[in-house]
Amino acid sequence: MTANAREGTRTVMLGSDIVERWARREDQALLTDLYQLTMMYGYWRTGRHRLRVSFEYFFRNLPPHTGFAVSCGLEQFLDYLDNLHFTDGDLAYLESLGLFDGPFLEYLRGFQPQVDVYAVPEGTLMFPHEPALRVEGGLAEAQLIETAVLNCLNYATLVATKTARVRLAAGDDYVMEFGLRRAQGPDGGLTGSRAAFVGGADATSNVLAGRLYGIPVRGTHAHSWVMSFPDELSAFRAYAQIYPDSTLLLVDTYDTLTSGLPHAVQVFRELREAGHHAQGAVRLDSGDLAKLSKAAHCMFVEAGFAHPTIVASNELDEDLIADLKRQGAKVNSWGVGTHLITASTQPALGGIYKLVAVADDGGWWQPRLKLSSNPAKMTDPGRKQVVRYRDEAGHPLGDILYLTDEELPDVEASMPYVPRDMLAFRRVLEGAAQAEPLLRPVAKAGRRLEPSPSLTEVRRRAQQEMRSLPDEYRRLRNPHVYEVGLSLPLGRVKTRLVREGQAGSAAPCGSL
Amino acid sequence: MTANAREGTRTVMLGSDIVERWARREDQALLTDLYQLTMMYGYWRTGRHRLRVSFEYFFRNLPPHTGFAVSCGLEQFLDYLDNLHFTDGDLAYLESLGLFDGPFLEYLRGFQPQVDVYAVPEGTLMFPHEPALRVEGGLAEAQLIETAVLNCLNYATLVATKTARVRLAAGDDYVMEFGLRRAQGPDGGLTGSRAAFVGGADATSNVLAGRLYGIPVRGTHAHSWVMSFPDELSAFRAYAQIYPDSTLLLVDTYDTLTSGLPHAVQVFRELREAGHHAQGAVRLDSGDLAKLSKAAHCMFVEAGFAHPTIVASNELDEDLIADLKRQGAKVNSWGVGTHLITASTQPALGGIYKLVAVADDGGWWQPRLKLSSNPAKMTDPGRKQVVRYRDEAGHPLGDILYLTDEELPDVEASMPYVPRDMLAFRRVLEGAAQAEPLLRPVAKAGRRLEPSPSLTEVRRRAQQEMRSLPDEYRRLRNPHVYEVGLSLPLGRVKTRLVREGQAGSAAPCGSL
Repeated sequence: MTANAREGTRTVMLGSDIVERWARREDQALLTDLYQLTMMYGYWRTGRHRLRVSFEYFFRNLPPHTGFAVSCGLEQFLDYLDNLHFTDGDLAYLESLGLFDGPFLEYLRGFQPQVDVYAVPEGTLMFPHEPALRVEGGLAEAQLIETAVLNCLNYATLVATKTARVRLAAGDDYVMEFGLRRAQGPDGGLTGSRAAFVGGADATSNVLAGRLYGIPVRGTHAHSWVMSFPDELSAFRAYAQIYPDSTLLLVDTYDTLTSGLPHAVQVFRELREAGHHAQGAVRLDSGDLAKLSKAAHCMFVEAGFAHPTIVASNELDEDLIADLKRQGAKVNSWGVGTHLITASTQPALGGIYKLVAVADDGGWWQPRLKLSSNPAKMTDPGRKQVVRYRDEAGHPLGDILYLTDEELPDVEASMPYVPRDMLAFRRVLEGAAQAEPLLRPVAKAGRRLEPSPSLTEVRRRAQQEMRSLPDEYRRLRNPHVYEVGLSLPLGRVKTRLVREGQAGSAAPCGSL
Repeated sequence: MTANAREGTRTVMLGSDIVERWARREDQALLTDLYQLTMMYGYWRTGRHRLRVSFEYFFRNLPPHTGFAVSCGLEQFLDYLDNLHFTDGDLAYLESLGLFDGPFLEYLRGFQPQVDVYAVPEGTLMFPHEPALRVEGGLAEAQLIETAVLNCLNYATLVATKTARVRLAAGDDYVMEFGLRRAQGPDGGLTGSRAAFVGGADATSNVLAGRLYGIPVRGTHAHSWVMSFPDELSAFRAYAQIYPDSTLLLVDTYDTLTSGLPHAVQVFRELREAGHHAQGAVRLDSGDLAKLSKAAHCMFVEAGFAHPTIVASNELDEDLIADLKRQGAKVNSWGVGTHLITASTQPALGGIYKLVAVADDGGWWQPRLKLSSNPAKMTDPGRKQVVRYRDEAGHPLGDILYLTDEELPDVEASMPYVPRDMLAFRRVLEGAAQAEPLLRPVAKAGRRLEPSPSLTEVRRRAQQEMRSLPDEYRRLRNPHVYEVGLSLPLGRVKTRLVREGQAGSAAPCGSL
């Protein structure tokens, strides 16, 4: 049973009221951590709220076994930003907390974000330590929106990435996202359906995601359909009568081999005899999917259905799909739910939003660094641009982070840089023929600069990027680590700030 | 920095508009899997949509190492049910799919759920295979709401359960939920904050959850506060000046031992000298939390602050908290984010919603069973009640599932039942003094039967239940398996249906 309306586009006729309503939901100003508001108040009280600052969003680690991330969630963040304001109810609640004074609440009443936002387009492949988004503006406002940045980008990027791996395992098979029932409530499911489509799913079971985002929706029937009838054959016949040209039967309610499959074959024979163009289509939701799918294929072929659709579901993930394909399973359509919507291998992307620069009185940006005893946790200081170098054929070779006030070098045969994890020596990127700066302005003074791309365009970009990525980064196990370097000036700034920050004397206490 | 407004209660003055808006959101009718609608259409077309059926929600397995689950999410489901209707926009979208005919869409236009719902109260401890919710009504409507049942109950129960484990590890310490930035979008965070409060968190960082649900909100400042000042001491002083009576300082921006802690102690000394009632309060967000918390405690004690508040955060979960306490860490307040909001050990609860009975023409309920080659996956047939047996002191001894048309036995010294996993022999529950039926009617003909309990009441119930549960079920590792049995009549019905269902001849194909 299939359906497809306005694939990947937000059309005016059917969707605009609902898209508008979801995008412009009230109450999003309070969807933040309290400390953003207490800091904001502190900045306002100390007259620092207009201090011009630059924050960058990045992640330090990819999920296990994963060689890339598919950036996703920018659209939801820009919707939030477009609509960010404090309502009377919000202000009454904040007043009740006893933490803020009246003049500050008045400031919030008139608050409109004025930040500038630079971001990589949704669907761009990203790697650890690369800024996917930069926010610049007053300290108070840039701080307030931290939680929304993280809430929007972390989960969406995680699921788009997980789905890209499922897509790699599934090859050209059809992939359906079935996760709503295991998601974190309604929005969890919606965000997940959208991100899964970007990452490479072909469809979702989530009807609201279909309406909101134009994602194709798919579904058939459940065990309860069969169980509500006196017997399986009657249940299958009834379903086939209603959807004679798109019947897909779930065959494991009783016993797949002795009951479900023979009954399904019988019903498809009956459809064919009645003149319908039926090809045979079943879903396996339990048991030995390798063995049962081969049996299903065999039974349909023996009955004269040469190309049956065989859908598998039940706790699938990219590893299980890869292993089933390795065993020659005759599945050509995969329903992936729980492990996709939760990205179960590591159900959170640890993306963070860090202050990288503060403008001084003269308006000059001064880079800032978060030190750490763990070198991997040190941030890269300063406002940065990510430049992706590709070979003649467009395959990415490596990325270099530049300070935005550096003049970006022309593409040359060798591109000197400092490896991020060793500030000691230089390498070169050989064979680079193209250089693409990834971050671009997406909002100015709090407003979007251009209309959103359609979701289909975003998905196409992601799939194109995936295809261009060399195999060694796309493996499901032990992928190569993609090279991300620092430009020589950025490397020097970082080294200087690390040295300056490491001053200070030990102050032991007790038995330490 | 702390705040607390209207703890756990939905008050009319501040919250009603927003609570109402979130509870009565439009568009929830489409927040379902497509197959619910294709089945619904099938039932309607075959005239079976009014067939009276009974579905039950239960889970088969607990998360790893976990001995109990804290039921949560009923409230969100009842909100959904109260507001379930198809809008014109929904119907236009469904029409565009080309799957449904006009008369069916007209039926949907007038659709109002008429189901009866029985459920255990939120905060009730539940165990595998026990129905936490039963829905009875027409086949079409009972089917439609499956996805919402699962979406509402699975995640909320998972997070309440995870938090209960964190609470067990943390003892009487203060526990704060900090998960919004790693949640599945806005509602993921909200549902998670509410469930965490039920499970035993004392507060959340999520301000919207504070406003919506009256959960106490907490927060201090981030690294960026410190980094936006010329130096750490100035940053701390500025913060202390704004919140002199509730300052809490994050001490790991540069170096905790040599910079953050000495500066914090200095600022609390200055506060004390200025006449404020400052006790010393810091947050550690990186490094060796055991060692650093001891150092912090020692430094504060040496400076005359006998009872400092020491908050720890950074990738905490119940195991890490237990291990830190084992090492004598001087932490008395825990901020738990990622691992709580994602329930990272197993980020989905596999709760399911299964048809258990169908009424025949005479109105008699006929039990139904989902067979499976895996005995653990067979369902328990029939409409059921869960009875919890307790000893004189109120400690649970075990639960027995009864058919609802059985007369529930008086509590006796021994309670015969059939163990769920072995239909072979009987056991007894010895020492039972109290018997409590857990499922009770919560909605009749689609409408709530009584107002919701306050969230504080729900939390109190959960915490009371946790305290009454014997230690062997509350362990963080290798908990006892709580006994759940079937009544003798239920056992007989199940045995009969399994035997009847296992008829059928093998139909091998190909090389199988």
